[in-house]
Amino acid sequence: MTPDRYQKLCTTLNRRQPDLTLLADEVHKPHNLAAIVRTCDAVGIQTVHLCNPNIRERSLRGRSMGSSRWVDVEKHANTVEAAKTLKAKGFKIYAAHFTDQAKHYHELDYTIPCALLVGSEKRGVSPEAAEIADEHVIIPMQGMVQSFNVSVAAAIILMEAQRQRQAAGLYDQCRIPEELRPDIMFRWGYP
Amino acid sequence: MTPDRYQKLCTTLNRRQPDLTLLADEVHKPHNLAAIVRTCDAVGIQTVHLCNPNIRERSLRGRSMGSSRWVDVEKHANTVEAAKTLKAKGFKIYAAHFTDQAKHYHELDYTIPCALLVGSEKRGVSPEAAEIADEHVIIPMQGMVQSFNVSVAAAIILMEAQRQRQAAGLYDQCRIPEELRPDIMFRWGYP
Ligand SMILES: C[S@@+](CC[C@H](N)C(=O)[O-])C[C@H]1O[C@@H](n2cnc3c(N)ncnc32)[C@H](O)[C@@H]1O
Ligand SMILES: C[S@@+](CC[C@H](N)C(=O)[O-])C[C@H]1O[C@@H](n2cnc3c(N)ncnc32)[C@H](O)[C@@H]1O
Repeated sequence: MTPDRYQKLCTTLNRRQPDLTLLADEVHKPHNLAAIVRTCDAVGIQTVHLCNPNIRERSLRGRSMGSSRWVDVEKHANTVEAAKTLKAKGFKIYAAHFTDQAKHYHELDYTIPCALLVGSEKRGVSPEAAEIADEHVIIPMQGMVQSFNVSVAAAIILMEAQRQRQAAGLYDQCRIPEELRPDIMFRWGYP
Repeated sequence: MTPDRYQKLCTTLNRRQPDLTLLADEVHKPHNLAAIVRTCDAVGIQTVHLCNPNIRERSLRGRSMGSSRWVDVEKHANTVEAAKTLKAKGFKIYAAHFTDQAKHYHELDYTIPCALLVGSEKRGVSPEAAEIADEHVIIPMQGMVQSFNVSVAAAIILMEAQRQRQAAGLYDQCRIPEELRPDIMFRWGYP
């Protein structure tokens, strides 16, 4: 590995945000999953949760331009169980979901441990997953169409999370626990 | 048409931004084009420019969840010609393009007449199109992957444009010239 490459890996590791993640509730189109994983890498998410029994790893890998090499993809058969596990670890669940109690996406605090939950292409967030969420969040739209593409919606909200975390200095020092760093560096460096 | 529906069409028309547009430089995957057109509708763009000789209208229509019904899609065989035409009408061309002179996407002024130029999935913005642009713009990334999916990048920048335009009051009064309104309402109402 060249020194430049090693430096790039270190810089990226130093910006990872262990207390920010995304949960995809039965999002199933490979190009959407790929775009989501790619955005997760870009905002510093190290672990993403894909909840869907039928994800094909292969197609994900090709399409995400290699981003699933840099982001740990955890698969779950059940969204509610995955959300419960995250809640037990202290994460708030923010469901991107159109309801009366939904808040504007600028209003939420993304500097605390939180997981953005996005819904499937056709059906959106399931009622059970919406129920378990701590907050519902929407991106206001000015047009006729009712929703954004799911990978677009995820990116808009994650970029707001990044903006808040940048302002709070959360990208300025390494936040991955020291004992976990060598393992990630090893996997990144020697695939 | 129900009164509610008519009201929704009026509200949408009143928020359209005739001096904001997007130019896609040989973006060719139907799901990306569809997601882009859908985002354009959501931020109030009425006319979008797709530059590519080989776009298949049919696949676009199915995938954009009907958003090409609400947004006028102009097709061009040549990106540079399309950009020149917009420049002659007073638009600044902002190319989303990785160069040394590129500015952070928060730094540009999107309240003036402007067109966001995005590049193709593989090759990005062509050198000729980059050359004719007034500004180059980038979204900083914290990860290992070099670029966002094109529809994601377009949405991130267009949402910043929307934020600025909202702050400037540009969604508060109808900005489509009066003589053009009946035609749009007719096409929307009786497809
Ligand atoms: C295509 S949308 C699902 C649409 C579905 N028909 C519904 O009504 O929920 C896929 C997912 O993208 C996210 N999404 C899309 N547009 C959004 C918006 N304006 N605000 C918040 N989330 C949005 C939500 O998580 C949604 O479940
Ligand atoms: C997948 S990228 C093209 C990547 C291509 N290999 C390159 O180097 O230009 C497709 C388009 O998305 C836009 N894009 C993606 N990530 C961007 C970023 N971080 N900043 C600005 N534009 C971006 C650009 O318009 C780009 O041409």
